[in-house]
Amino acid sequence: MNMDMIIVGSLALDTIEAPAGRVENAVGGSATYASLAASYFTTPGLVGVVGSDFPEEQKQAFRKNGIDLSGLQIVEGKTFRWGGRYSPQLDQRETLFTELNVFESFSPELPEAYQNSKYVLLANIQPDLQHQVLDQITGEPFVVVDTMNLWINTALESLKRLLRRTHLLIVNDEEAQMLTGEMSHGAAARKLQHMGPKLVVIKKGQHGALLFGSKGEVFSAPALVFSRVTDPTGAGDAFAGGMLGYLANEQSTDFATLRRAVVWGSVMSSFAIQKFSATGLLQLKQSALDNRYHEFKSISIF
Amino acid sequence: MNMDMIIVGSLALDTIEAPAGRVENAVGGSATYASLAASYFTTPGLVGVVGSDFPEEQKQAFRKNGIDLSGLQIVEGKTFRWGGRYSPQLDQRETLFTELNVFESFSPELPEAYQNSKYVLLANIQPDLQHQVLDQITGEPFVVVDTMNLWINTALESLKRLLRRTHLLIVNDEEAQMLTGEMSHGAAARKLQHMGPKLVVIKKGQHGALLFGSKGEVFSAPALVFSRVTDPTGAGDAFAGGMLGYLANEQSTDFATLRRAVVWGSVMSSFAIQKFSATGLLQLKQSALDNRYHEFKSISIF
Repeated sequence: MNMDMIIVGSLALDTIEAPAGRVENAVGGSATYASLAASYFTTPGLVGVVGSDFPEEQKQAFRKNGIDLSGLQIVEGKTFRWGGRYSPQLDQRETLFTELNVFESFSPELPEAYQNSKYVLLANIQPDLQHQVLDQITGEPFVVVDTMNLWINTALESLKRLLRRTHLLIVNDEEAQMLTGEMSHGAAARKLQHMGPKLVVIKKGQHGALLFGSKGEVFSAPALVFSRVTDPTGAGDAFAGGMLGYLANEQSTDFATLRRAVVWGSVMSSFAIQKFSATGLLQLKQSALDNRYHEFKSISIF
Repeated sequence: MNMDMIIVGSLALDTIEAPAGRVENAVGGSATYASLAASYFTTPGLVGVVGSDFPEEQKQAFRKNGIDLSGLQIVEGKTFRWGGRYSPQLDQRETLFTELNVFESFSPELPEAYQNSKYVLLANIQPDLQHQVLDQITGEPFVVVDTMNLWINTALESLKRLLRRTHLLIVNDEEAQMLTGEMSHGAAARKLQHMGPKLVVIKKGQHGALLFGSKGEVFSAPALVFSRVTDPTGAGDAFAGGMLGYLANEQSTDFATLRRAVVWGSVMSSFAIQKFSATGLLQLKQSALDNRYHEFKSISIF
């Protein structure tokens, strides 16, 4: 079976401290959140690496959610570990530790069935690794890139080269400003489009998200106002996974479909942050997803 | 003729410095912006005071825009003057001078035709003056209050008493936080509702506005992304005037009407900031208003 959509990113065992509590060695990482979010729309192929200590039941949970694991490398040693602590208002995060472990020597390898995929999500990892995935693709997929301030600061040249291979870039407002020097979202998006991606999403946290199209189109997606936030980790990864999963299932990237994809990304993100680590994205019912989508609609319609 | 809607607030001659230029003694003040914005929906009655130096052609401009001036006091002396300077990004404003002049001894007096009005906008002025207007009303109007950080700091008790007489409070996010101590918009709105007004609008500048209803309803209105900003002065006043003008014309305050009213307020605000002082609100064509309303719709629909 050829994979329609593949996701490369990190898999991690996270230790997270937040006002609502603490979890230790909980399954996280950008590819985990993104592939779980995408799994409600399509069968995503997961490209990444874990150590021999990665819990078997977590692999089962991935499979049960409909994720293909033939691109997941299992390497003797310890899984990537990350620890972080949130501020009381959840608006700031401090990294407590980072242990790369098996991730240090990770080199993504795409199974043959992945090389023709039409939708590729390069979730948040080192840009050189994102390039390596694209280098193995034989077709002309729709390429979505997520990144973070760390790579803007430490791997800017590689990231800029990557942007020239990108169709849709997803960044938050701080990253957009770092990359362009522009305070205004509109001006930042225009500059980002000149750097490569025809489509740009700027996420604004509690203020929703903006989507910029190639012909000057703009879509402003709302955020939910009374959403319960337990653990913001993975919100952006879930957004990217949900957004591209929806596009892959619709087999379209026209602007009307992209608008709805941004809302579906927001829906998946809203589930991710309700529970610790990635558990908020496990075994969701279609009716729960549909109700949440309707909430986004009812808050913004006039 | 009985006035359906009246507006009390300040009339001023403003000196404004912004990156786009400078104007001197341009007609401004909260009642000016609000009544011009409202005039596209209804015939608002303007309650305020100016000095004998207030330009006759400006009164003509008000009348030409369909504003009733029988509640406007003209007092021997100089009109209230205000000077301000905006930062290069327009995100900060410094007050250069304030000369109260005839405003110092202002005591609003409602003509008989105003005392039965059904929609009362207490635009931004000292809360004691806002009380004085309500004290002269004989009916049971729908009361909208706008205010600012100055009155929260210097006249909080009067403002709190006023909130108990208020149906709809319009504040920006900073004012909402000052009044409630809550960072989250949802929590702030709930607290404000407990202070009196069943309906609360929290304006978020470039992120749009949120409307909170009495039964837990929420509406999130978008902002335009590529709007040209020449002079932000009066944006909030125009919002309030446009919003209540629309409600007065629709003769309804149900939630669906309130949603559209928030967007019409945003439309009027978007015109106000395109030109210096209140000139952006003069002699607008219906087709321009309709097109702008459609822009808000097209940016947010999915």
